[in-house]
Amino acid sequence: MEGVYIMGVATVFIKSNIGICGGASVVGKKEGEGPLAKYFDIVHDDDTLGEKTWEKAESRLQKDAVNKVLQKTNLSTTDVDIMLAGDLLNQCIGSSFGLREMEIPFLGLYGACSTMAESLVVGSLLLESNQVKTVLCVTSSHFCSAERQFRTPLEYGGQRTPTAQWTVTGSGAIILKDENCSPKIKAVKIGKIVDLGIKDANNMGSAMAPAAADTISSFLSDANMTPNDFDAILTGDLGKHGSEMLKQLLLKSNIDISGVHKDCGMLIFDNENQDTHCGGSGCGCAASVLSSYILEQFKQNKLKNILFVATGALLSPTSVMQGESIPSIAHLVWIQA
Amino acid sequence: MEGVYIMGVATVFIKSNIGICGGASVVGKKEGEGPLAKYFDIVHDDDTLGEKTWEKAESRLQKDAVNKVLQKTNLSTTDVDIMLAGDLLNQCIGSSFGLREMEIPFLGLYGACSTMAESLVVGSLLLESNQVKTVLCVTSSHFCSAERQFRTPLEYGGQRTPTAQWTVTGSGAIILKDENCSPKIKAVKIGKIVDLGIKDANNMGSAMAPAAADTISSFLSDANMTPNDFDAILTGDLGKHGSEMLKQLLLKSNIDISGVHKDCGMLIFDNENQDTHCGGSGCGCAASVLSSYILEQFKQNKLKNILFVATGALLSPTSVMQGESIPSIAHLVWIQA
Repeated sequence: MEGVYIMGVATVFIKSNIGICGGASVVGKKEGEGPLAKYFDIVHDDDTLGEKTWEKAESRLQKDAVNKVLQKTNLSTTDVDIMLAGDLLNQCIGSSFGLREMEIPFLGLYGACSTMAESLVVGSLLLESNQVKTVLCVTSSHFCSAERQFRTPLEYGGQRTPTAQWTVTGSGAIILKDENCSPKIKAVKIGKIVDLGIKDANNMGSAMAPAAADTISSFLSDANMTPNDFDAILTGDLGKHGSEMLKQLLLKSNIDISGVHKDCGMLIFDNENQDTHCGGSGCGCAASVLSSYILEQFKQNKLKNILFVATGALLSPTSVMQGESIPSIAHLVWIQA
Repeated sequence: MEGVYIMGVATVFIKSNIGICGGASVVGKKEGEGPLAKYFDIVHDDDTLGEKTWEKAESRLQKDAVNKVLQKTNLSTTDVDIMLAGDLLNQCIGSSFGLREMEIPFLGLYGACSTMAESLVVGSLLLESNQVKTVLCVTSSHFCSAERQFRTPLEYGGQRTPTAQWTVTGSGAIILKDENCSPKIKAVKIGKIVDLGIKDANNMGSAMAPAAADTISSFLSDANMTPNDFDAILTGDLGKHGSEMLKQLLLKSNIDISGVHKDCGMLIFDNENQDTHCGGSGCGCAASVLSSYILEQFKQNKLKNILFVATGALLSPTSVMQGESIPSIAHLVWIQA
């Protein structure tokens, strides 16, 4: 299917030789106590990272992830043509303050928790222009900055609903290059906004599942492939309920992903013993899992062919207070060894 | 200079035949009383647009701008491969709620007031991949949603400082295509974040001027051109003070733009009679001026060759409260008849 342009569908099969040349992850204490602990590059004991505010701590996560991925790939900031970055904070200050000293051409993205997939999609298409050589993608989230912005101040000690997810304190950075790196980006698909009317901001997995179903089913149709053609279909942070809903929604179209589905939000925490209810979430969830554990599985040949599908809930506290439902989106990247 | 790739500099000279095939603008009452009134496609008498909240009104601006540009270019939503959108609201809900029913593959951008330039830059590079044919760029801002989010509730009746700018209530949408449309996109330059330490959130023009100076001077150097090679160097919304500062900063590098510089924020209002102090601002300012007045000047052959340089102040109310300075960015698009 490579090289076939399908008009108006926006599954783009990549013609250039675009690959992931390296990844780096930086996470907080709780993530460092979870099942993926040994795969992260930097684990902080103290979620303040020594900074005065949670927002500055989140900016540090991005800065450290970028510096780490540059170090691991033997690149300097001047080798990077474009940096694509995003986060969940109002006006995306995690990115702009974290990266302001880098002196790398900067494009800010907003896709909520889908932002790592969005940045890989845009980065791949920028490389596909043959006008740039090296792109850096980075996103972050921080439990404490997210709680006070989206929910309640930590000091309030609010009870969490069973459908709630736990925002990951973490950042992941990935280098894409138009040269011989592995794994390769085989195709990308930009999602459409899907809103089935769910209004419970404590149940974002369910709000986002229809967007994931839409993107995955239309990709499989565009590519004329089935779930079993992949080692894994890896969603970003649908969590426990959202993942169940995704499987059920796809079954209605006779697509059974139950044998290959994994969710970064379910992988990063031990939900039972870490009290994270439905699993991890946030721009840093899919980013840190992909850039650590998943890339390592590719290195060890345990994964050879996956779909990475990160979802985002495009709401705000204001839209919730105004009685609105939750528009969601899912972007897809086909990654192959 | 066309077709020359300058390594690590990120001025990209476009090789494909990419042009602006149409634009549409939707604005509020005050903008409709300003000097550019006759160029806008839709002028609303009532800034609520009949919606229940300012945020919903802003979403409507984007929706109406998109529908209008599709109508003017005889395109349907299925003809658009990718929609690039952004705004100033927390979590960019102006875009996600305004465009959720469009069923067009959606990429959210955040570049504050630089977002229209950012979307044109990204859109041009996506087209340069030869994998997509039609891209729609749209951004918005609304005076009332911005005031209550960034400053004080309207009811408070706060006094404005002389350096303050007036957020434009408006949206602009532009269609880019890889075919014979005029004017053409000749080159794009992605800005770097620049922060010279200015902390006054009521003087954003001054915070953003250094970013504009950086992008313009390095573009002129990359392209080996001078300001007088252009009919206009059009900044987004530096306003009165920011524009002065930009000219002074560039003069230090022996670049004199005083003969060709225009600023969308200075064009859209009659600052003396409309009490807008330093001029217009917001994601909708540069977008609505470019997609109306400027495109019309190209049609009438009054403009043939311009640089469009929109700047963004990448701060948030939280970063201001935490005593931070204002990181800024400027993206550049070279547009030629």
